Amino acid sequence: MESTRLTLCDIGNTTFDFYREGVKEKIATADYELKKSEEKIFYICVNEKVGQELKNFPNWIDLKAFVDMKKYYETMGIDRIAVCESIENGVVIDAGSAITVDVVRKGAFVGGYIALGLSASHKAYTGISPRLDYSYNFEIDLDKIPKNSEDALTYAQVGLLYRDVMSYALPVYLTGGDAPELKNIFKDAVLDDELIFKGMKNIMKKADLC
Amino acid sequence: MESTRLTLCDIGNTTFDFYREGVKEKIATADYELKKSEEKIFYICVNEKVGQELKNFPNWIDLKAFVDMKKYYETMGIDRIAVCESIENGVVIDAGSAITVDVVRKGAFVGGYIALGLSASHKAYTGISPRLDYSYNFEIDLDKIPKNSEDALTYAQVGLLYRDVMSYALPVYLTGGDAPELKNIFKDAVLDDELIFKGMKNIMKKADLC
Repeated sequence: MESTRLTLCDIGNTTFDFYREGVKEKIATADYELKKSEEKIFYICVNEKVGQELKNFPNWIDLKAFVDMKKYYETMGIDRIAVCESIENGVVIDAGSAITVDVVRKGAFVGGYIALGLSASHKAYTGISPRLDYSYNFEIDLDKIPKNSEDALTYAQVGLLYRDVMSYALPVYLTGGDAPELKNIFKDAVLDDELIFKGMKNIMKKADLC
Repeated sequence: MESTRLTLCDIGNTTFDFYREGVKEKIATADYELKKSEEKIFYICVNEKVGQELKNFPNWIDLKAFVDMKKYYETMGIDRIAVCESIENGVVIDAGSAITVDVVRKGAFVGGYIALGLSASHKAYTGISPRLDYSYNFEIDLDKIPKNSEDALTYAQVGLLYRDVMSYALPVYLTGGDAPELKNIFKDAVLDDELIFKGMKNIMKKADLC
C-alpha cells in the first residue's frame, strides 16, 4: 500500500535533508542512491547535478515549478525562496555554508543579501595570513568598536550583519547549521530549524498540493 | 658619502614598499635580497620571517619600537597602527588582502575591525559554490535591499561596511590596493595611497627621529 504521509526533501550541495511528519533525516549526497519508487517526494534542490538526475524520477516533484517567481528574481536560490515563504513578516537568516539574509514584509519579498558562512569566512581569513586565525567571539559586546583581534574579525563578519538586520525593526528568524551560534548574538531571534520545510509546505498549500 | 634622504619601507606579506622623498617603489619579497648597507631604512613589517632576518641588519630601524602602544592593543598589526597615526580624526579604510577599518577621534584610537579583502571574499564565495561566482557591482544602489545576485554579494561585503563606516560621521580615508574600487562607494572619501608613509613619518616625528 502506498504511504500517504508527506515527504519533503531539501537537497543541498552535500546532503539530502528529508522531512517526514516532523521527523528529519540527513543523508550525504554521496551515500544516497536515487531509486525508482512510488513514494511522492516534494523537493527543492540547489545541487545542479542532482537536479538533472531527478528529472528521470517522476515521483520526485520539484516545488520550484509551483513558486510565484514574480515575487522573487530569476537567479535567487530556491532554498532562500523557501525560507522566505515560511514567514509573513520578518528578516530570515539562513546560516549555512553561506549566510543568506532576506527581508519579507506582509508576505512580499523586499530583498536580501548573501554573506559568507562562518566557516568560509574563517577559512578565508587564515588564507590571508596565519595571523588572522582567530575563532569568532559570540560573547562580543557590539556596542563598542573592537580593541582586540578576535573581536575585530567577529565584528566584521557578525557585527555588521547584526546592525543591518536590526535596522529593519522586524522579527528575526534564524535557521541553518550555524543558527545556534548566531542566536548568541541575535538574542531575541526565533530559532527554527524547520523553517525551510514550513516554507515548502506553504508553497504546496498555495498550489493546492496539500 | 652617506645619503641624508629619508628612506621608509612598509614590508607586507608579499612586497617591500619603499618610499623615498615622495617616490614609491614596490619590490616582491622573493626578489629582494637584504644586504649590509650604510643607508638607514625606517620600516614597519608584518611579515614574521622577514622581521626576524632584519634584526641582523642594524641600518634597518623598526618603527614599531617607537610607537606609544598604550594607545593600541598588543596584537594589532603595525600597518594598521601606522595608518591610524596618519590622521587626527576619521575612519581609515586600508583595502588590501584584508580590509581594515579603524576609527580615530582627536588623535586617539577608538577601535577597529578587519574584514576580508575583496579578492579573498570573492574567492571564498566561489569556494562555497560556483553559483556564487559574481563580480562585485561598485555601481550598487545601497539605499535598496538587493534583488539580484551580484548586488546580493556586493551588499554583504561592501554595503554593510559602508553603512557602518558612515555611522561614525567622521571623514573617511581610503588607502591600499583596492581603494580606487571602494572610492566608487565611498564617494566623499579621501583617497590617499601614501597614508601609511605619512603615519610612519608621524611616528618618527613624535620620537624625534626626523
